[in-house]
Amino acid sequence: MDAETGTGLQALGNVGVVGLGLIGGSIALDLRQQGVPVTGLVHRDRTAARALQRGLVDEVSCQPSCLSVCNTVILALPIEALLKPEPTLVEALPRDAVVTDVASVKGAVLEVWRHRHPRFVAAHPMAGTDQSGVDAGLSGLFQGRPWVATPEPSTDPQALARVKTLAEGLGSEWITADAGCHDQAVALVSHLPVMVSAALLRAAGEERDPRVLNLAQRLASSGFADTTRVGGGNPALGTAMASRNTAALLKALAAYRWSLEQLEEAILSGHWAQLENELHRTSTLRPGFVEKGSGPITPAV
Amino acid sequence: MDAETGTGLQALGNVGVVGLGLIGGSIALDLRQQGVPVTGLVHRDRTAARALQRGLVDEVSCQPSCLSVCNTVILALPIEALLKPEPTLVEALPRDAVVTDVASVKGAVLEVWRHRHPRFVAAHPMAGTDQSGVDAGLSGLFQGRPWVATPEPSTDPQALARVKTLAEGLGSEWITADAGCHDQAVALVSHLPVMVSAALLRAAGEERDPRVLNLAQRLASSGFADTTRVGGGNPALGTAMASRNTAALLKALAAYRWSLEQLEEAILSGHWAQLENELHRTSTLRPGFVEKGSGPITPAV
Repeated sequence: MDAETGTGLQALGNVGVVGLGLIGGSIALDLRQQGVPVTGLVHRDRTAARALQRGLVDEVSCQPSCLSVCNTVILALPIEALLKPEPTLVEALPRDAVVTDVASVKGAVLEVWRHRHPRFVAAHPMAGTDQSGVDAGLSGLFQGRPWVATPEPSTDPQALARVKTLAEGLGSEWITADAGCHDQAVALVSHLPVMVSAALLRAAGEERDPRVLNLAQRLASSGFADTTRVGGGNPALGTAMASRNTAALLKALAAYRWSLEQLEEAILSGHWAQLENELHRTSTLRPGFVEKGSGPITPAV
Repeated sequence: MDAETGTGLQALGNVGVVGLGLIGGSIALDLRQQGVPVTGLVHRDRTAARALQRGLVDEVSCQPSCLSVCNTVILALPIEALLKPEPTLVEALPRDAVVTDVASVKGAVLEVWRHRHPRFVAAHPMAGTDQSGVDAGLSGLFQGRPWVATPEPSTDPQALARVKTLAEGLGSEWITADAGCHDQAVALVSHLPVMVSAALLRAAGEERDPRVLNLAQRLASSGFADTTRVGGGNPALGTAMASRNTAALLKALAAYRWSLEQLEEAILSGHWAQLENELHRTSTLRPGFVEKGSGPITPAV
């Protein structure tokens, strides 16, 4: 089957996956299970051996030249490595291959990559767990999750179509958006919650009265656990998000600060009917973001 | 067995439960399952009929005089009703009965109740679901959950011991604390998260660019769902918490605002090592509040 015109995953041809952590490993597993040949490129011999042992790849190498046989290359590197790519990696990418990435920030990635490869497609599969490394990859990770591509006028339409085939072949919902829109939306629903949640952990955890702190620790229940979950996550990830999506995150933080001030002002003034209205309005906003069915558990008064 | 010296739940004697919603109904169910006779007092005939039908109580009435046979009375009313008790209810409480409550705010409750009954014990079982009403009560709701009492120097020690018997008989962890400490701790881990979470819903839900808003709604995942869960809860409950624990909540909000400003300042200044340190510190604070095992799910970068 011709690699460019096939409709199934076979259209990807030989696939190279650069980095076999959570996202790269999961993509590789799903592709292999559907019969697509996968070559992995990793940094360390030990990672290479483990990737073979786990059956993530057909072939694996620490030499970028292994990509020469690939028709499609997925850059599944940590964002810092993606934004400062090794020249040997860039040189090893076949010029006629389709190259795509998986980073959660698209503006910064396009700045670096739009001139580095003629068939680059910026993309972001929105899926994950809290695991990382070569043992983290799972099959079925992308099933039902959004896979956002942020094409530009200069993006090769056939390359874009091939990344769509990849995303849909792994069960994802395909979405295209402007990179700026994507980065602002992700700042609101993914990067801002990390800061909001981390600040809550600090406010509670740095309570100065040891009696209050001790009691707060004993009384914290599912509401506190849920609200602080993303703030207790990987500090390096949170920092990478903030440093690579700074303008959008600062804009989101400003909107957040304004929202919180409205609530605080109502409390300070004792405008309880207004506070109840505000909380009612926020409760009606949630279903737009969160499927029904995953109902809230609220603490009892 | 003497009601005052028994060690099991029989020491409670006849129990009156005022209000048969989530908390009152759950207490009643657990008590009856252990053979303790329960009399319910409710407002409406229809609630009374349903309570009997569900087997929550042995007897039920809409007349406060039904409490005259009770040795222990649990006031499981909504906080507003508890803080403005009907005179007929107060008059109907036997003077030698032990009277306790279940509200999440203790300072305001003590102000109202410490002079209204000689054997009043302020208490707060920390358990709940998002359900309410006469159909909400569940057996086993308090198993393994904290049950905090906030005795004062004037609190009757025998009355306090009887409430401890109740709490432990229902499987709770018994904690005593100063009311002010309790209210500040609950502000930090329960009332503050509601405001923090509601403000996040507003910041995202009131995004003015419709393309960004639409994309944010499609991309919101488990991290956003978790962080906004308590903010999307019952507006009347959130308002009652804020209006009855105002000083402690405002103090908690001030601490929160300061914490968020530290993070925002690091982002604004591009002090990434400092931001990573801060996020590392917050991630180490979380296990003090949340048992291990309920691990975080963080979005992928």
